[in-house]
Amino acid sequence: MITRDKTQDWSMVIKQFEAVVGKNGVVRRPEELLVYECDGLTSYRQRPAIVVLPRTTEEVAAIVKICDRQRLPFVTRGAGTGLSGGALPTENCVLIVTALMRKILRVDLANQRIVVQPGVINSWVTQAVSGAGFYYAPDPSSQIVCSVGGNVAENSGGVHCLKYGVTTNHVLGLKLVLPDGSIVEVGGEVAETPGYDLTGLFVGSEGTLGIATEITLRILKQPEAVRVLLADFTNVEAAGAAVSDIISAGIIPGGMEIMDNLSINAVEDVVATGCYPRDAVAILLVEVDGLEVEAAASSQRVEAICRHNGARSVTIATDPEQRLKLWKGRKAAFAAAGKLSPDYYVQDGVIPRTKLPFVLQEIEALSQKHGYKVANVFHAGDGNLHPLILYDNSIPGELERVEELGGDILKLCVEVGGSISGEHGIGADKRCYMPNMFTPTDLETMMWVREVFDPQRIANPDKIFPTPRTCGEAARVETSKQFSGIELF
Amino acid sequence: MITRDKTQDWSMVIKQFEAVVGKNGVVRRPEELLVYECDGLTSYRQRPAIVVLPRTTEEVAAIVKICDRQRLPFVTRGAGTGLSGGALPTENCVLIVTALMRKILRVDLANQRIVVQPGVINSWVTQAVSGAGFYYAPDPSSQIVCSVGGNVAENSGGVHCLKYGVTTNHVLGLKLVLPDGSIVEVGGEVAETPGYDLTGLFVGSEGTLGIATEITLRILKQPEAVRVLLADFTNVEAAGAAVSDIISAGIIPGGMEIMDNLSINAVEDVVATGCYPRDAVAILLVEVDGLEVEAAASSQRVEAICRHNGARSVTIATDPEQRLKLWKGRKAAFAAAGKLSPDYYVQDGVIPRTKLPFVLQEIEALSQKHGYKVANVFHAGDGNLHPLILYDNSIPGELERVEELGGDILKLCVEVGGSISGEHGIGADKRCYMPNMFTPTDLETMMWVREVFDPQRIANPDKIFPTPRTCGEAARVETSKQFSGIELF
Repeated sequence: MITRDKTQDWSMVIKQFEAVVGKNGVVRRPEELLVYECDGLTSYRQRPAIVVLPRTTEEVAAIVKICDRQRLPFVTRGAGTGLSGGALPTENCVLIVTALMRKILRVDLANQRIVVQPGVINSWVTQAVSGAGFYYAPDPSSQIVCSVGGNVAENSGGVHCLKYGVTTNHVLGLKLVLPDGSIVEVGGEVAETPGYDLTGLFVGSEGTLGIATEITLRILKQPEAVRVLLADFTNVEAAGAAVSDIISAGIIPGGMEIMDNLSINAVEDVVATGCYPRDAVAILLVEVDGLEVEAAASSQRVEAICRHNGARSVTIATDPEQRLKLWKGRKAAFAAAGKLSPDYYVQDGVIPRTKLPFVLQEIEALSQKHGYKVANVFHAGDGNLHPLILYDNSIPGELERVEELGGDILKLCVEVGGSISGEHGIGADKRCYMPNMFTPTDLETMMWVREVFDPQRIANPDKIFPTPRTCGEAARVETSKQFSGIELF
Repeated sequence: MITRDKTQDWSMVIKQFEAVVGKNGVVRRPEELLVYECDGLTSYRQRPAIVVLPRTTEEVAAIVKICDRQRLPFVTRGAGTGLSGGALPTENCVLIVTALMRKILRVDLANQRIVVQPGVINSWVTQAVSGAGFYYAPDPSSQIVCSVGGNVAENSGGVHCLKYGVTTNHVLGLKLVLPDGSIVEVGGEVAETPGYDLTGLFVGSEGTLGIATEITLRILKQPEAVRVLLADFTNVEAAGAAVSDIISAGIIPGGMEIMDNLSINAVEDVVATGCYPRDAVAILLVEVDGLEVEAAASSQRVEAICRHNGARSVTIATDPEQRLKLWKGRKAAFAAAGKLSPDYYVQDGVIPRTKLPFVLQEIEALSQKHGYKVANVFHAGDGNLHPLILYDNSIPGELERVEELGGDILKLCVEVGGSISGEHGIGADKRCYMPNMFTPTDLETMMWVREVFDPQRIANPDKIFPTPRTCGEAARVETSKQFSGIELF
C-alpha cells in the first residue's frame, strides 16, 4: 500500500516540482488549495497536499516520475466538473491539474481528426472546426466547462450519444504518461490499429492507469438538417412506449430524452422556456438529423409514433433558435433541480430500454418509501437514467439517507440487467456498488490490469475499486485466488 | 518460456481431455490433424499435437486448466478462415477448436442483442434475426463460413463497417475463459458498463488473452431502403477524389469500395457479373441506406459527385437482386484473384483517406520494382487497402520475394500515418512489422497486459509480438526497462 505519511517532507518535493513547472506552477497555500477539495460531487471533500500545473507531456512525465520515485499518490484533475468524485483528492496527494494544457495541437479536416491537450474544454473542439462544417459529437451537459481529458477519464456521454456513441467511440489515439512517468502512444490517427486496444482500455479508466496528455479525436461532419420534437404525454409508460416504437421503426435519433413532471416544472420555474407543458406527466424530446429529406421524413414518423402512443401535442422545431429553446430546459435540468430544493443528488444508472416503465414505477415506490422527491431526467434512447434526489444537506444524516436511496436505485438497475453507471463514472462515489455488478473474479481481472500499469498504486488510488475501509459492502467480495504482490482491497 | 518438449507424454493428457469432452472430442491421428495445419494464410503450416473440441464454457475451462497445469501451449481456432495466421498452431500445441460450439443461446429483439457461442457462423446471426427485421452489421467477405469467435479474436471488419463500425463496436459483453482456466464475464448487456473496458481489450487480442465462450452482440434494425451505385472511372485518383467528396458532403455510405482494372477483369473472368466495365481503370461501389427518402436523396448526391469527378457512367441498383449483382464481383474478388495466377497474397493495411492517390501510385511503383502484378481492392471510405499480390508458389523463393513486397506496402502505410492491419489482424504473418508501428515502450505496455492474463505465455504464444527467432527486424526493438519475470521476446 502507499505510504501516506503525514510527516512527508514536502519542501524537497516542492523544489523538485518547481524545477519542472516553475514557482507559478505549484500551488501550496491552504487557502488556494480550498478550490481543489472536491469536483462536481461536492458531498466528498479532501484537500490535496499540493497542486501542480504542468503545460506539456514532458512536464507531466517529470512530475509523475517524482511521484513514482517517492511513492506519492497523485490524482489528475481536468475542469473538476465530474459527478462521481473521480477527481476527489486522496489524502496527502499531489493533484495534477491540466488547466494550463489547453492547446489545440493539430487539426486535420480532410481526415476528420483533431489533436488536443487534455485541458481543452469540450465545446472548444466543436468551435475549432465548426467554421468548416464539422463538430465533436460527445456533449455532456457540462460541455461549456468540462475538459476533454476529464471526458476521456470518465468516458463521458451526453444527449447526442444515442446515435453517435460516447467518448470512447470518438478517441482515435492517446499520448499517455504512465504511473512510472514513461510516455507511450496508444491507438493512432486511423480508426483501427493492431495489437491490444489500449486506447479503449484507457478511456474510462478514471485516472487510475495514467494521464492522457495528447488526445486525437474524431470529428464529424455537421448534419445538413436537424429537427427537434417535443411530445407531451399524460403518462410515462406511453412516453417509454413511443421511445421503443421509434427505435423499432429503424430511426436512430441524435438524442431522445424524457423528463418527468417534477423536472418540467423545475425548469419552467427557473429558465421559463414557455414551451414545456407544466401539466404533462412526461415530455419526450427527440432530435432527428441527416439530409434535409431524411430529417423531414424522420420527424414526420416520430410525430406519428408519438401521437399513436397518446401524445396530447407535438411541437416541432426546425430553425436553430427554436431548437435551442426546446433543448434549453433539458440542458438546465440539473441546475433547475438545485432551485427546487437546497440540495440534490444526481444518480446515473443504465437499464435495458424495455424495462423503463417498470423501473420508473419502482423508483416512485422507492421515493415514497425513503421520503424524498425524485425528479427523473433521462437519455431514454439508451436507457440511461438520471434520477435527481432532492434533499436538504443542512439536516444531519440527510445525505446518508439520500445515498441509501441512490444505492437502492442502482441495485434496481443491476437487477433488471443494467449498469451502475452510464456516463458519470464510478469515481469515489459508487465503488461500493461494484460488487453488485461484478463477481470477485471479474473485479480481480480489472485489478490485475491496474497492477500492471501502477504496481505502487499511486495513480488515483482510491477510485473505482471498493476497499473495506470505505465500503461495508466490500466484505461480500472475497478474493478467489492468491497471487503475490496484489492486495485486492 | 514455455516448455515445448517433444517428448511430452501425450497419453496422460489425452486421457484427461477425453474425460472432459469424450473420445469423440479429441483428434490425434496424424491424418486427421492435417486439416488443422493452417488457417486462411496457407503459406505457414504447423501440425498441432492434438485437437480438442469442447461444447460448453465449462469444457473449455477444464481443457485450459489441464493446459495451464502442464504448461502446454494452446491455440484457439474458429472456422480457420483468418488471413494472418492467427489460428496457426504453435509447435507441439493443443488446438482448441470451437466447431461444436454453435448454439445461439439467447435472442432479445426488444433490446437488440443476441448471445451466441463462438463457433456460430457470422451469417447465422443475421439469419437468426432477419425475420424480425434485424441484422448483424460486421460482414467479412468470408461471412458465410467464418465464426463469430474468430471475428472477435481478429476484430474483423467488412464492406459495411464504414458506417456501422467493426466487430468491437458490436460486442456488448463476453464470457471468457482466461489462460489459467478461470471464467470471467466482461461488459454486459447494455452498451456501457463501468470499470475498465476489458471487452474492448479482449476484442482483437487474437487469442492471446483467453477464449471467448459466450458473445453478446448488438443487432441493428434493417434499413428501410438500400441503394447500390457503381461508378466507372478512367483514373483511380478521380475515384479517390469522389470518395473524399462523398464523405465531405456529410453522407456516410454503408460501404464504399474501389476495385482497380486488374481486379475488375479478374472478377469478370470468373463470376461474369456483366456489369463491371472491363475498360474502367477503377470502379467505385457505393451503398447508401436509411429511410426511403434518405437513400434516394443520398444516391442522387453520390451520383452527382461521381459524375462531377469524371465518372463515365453510374449504374444504380435499387432492388435486392440488382444490388446483389453489383456486389457479387466485389465479394468474389479474392477468389477471382486465385484464378488470375496460381497463388495470391492478400495484404491488409490502412492509410488516411487523403493519401489514397499517392499510395496507389507508390504501390504501382513497388509492383514494377519487385516484378509482381498487384490487384487492388479496398474499403475506400476508411482507407483500408487490400492489395492482392499475384505469384506462383511453385517457383522456389517466390513466396519470400512476395512477402518482401507485401512488407514494403505495409511500411508505406505506416509512413503515411496509417496502420499495418485494418481487419485481418497481426497473427503470425505481420508481427515482424509491429516495431515499424510501435515504439519499444508501446509494445512493452501491450506485453505487460499480456503478462497479466497469461504469465506462463501458453495462450497463442507466437502471435502478435515479434520474436528474434522469427523476425530479423525485431533486433531493432530493444527493451527500455527491466522488470522481473517478463522476457519481452
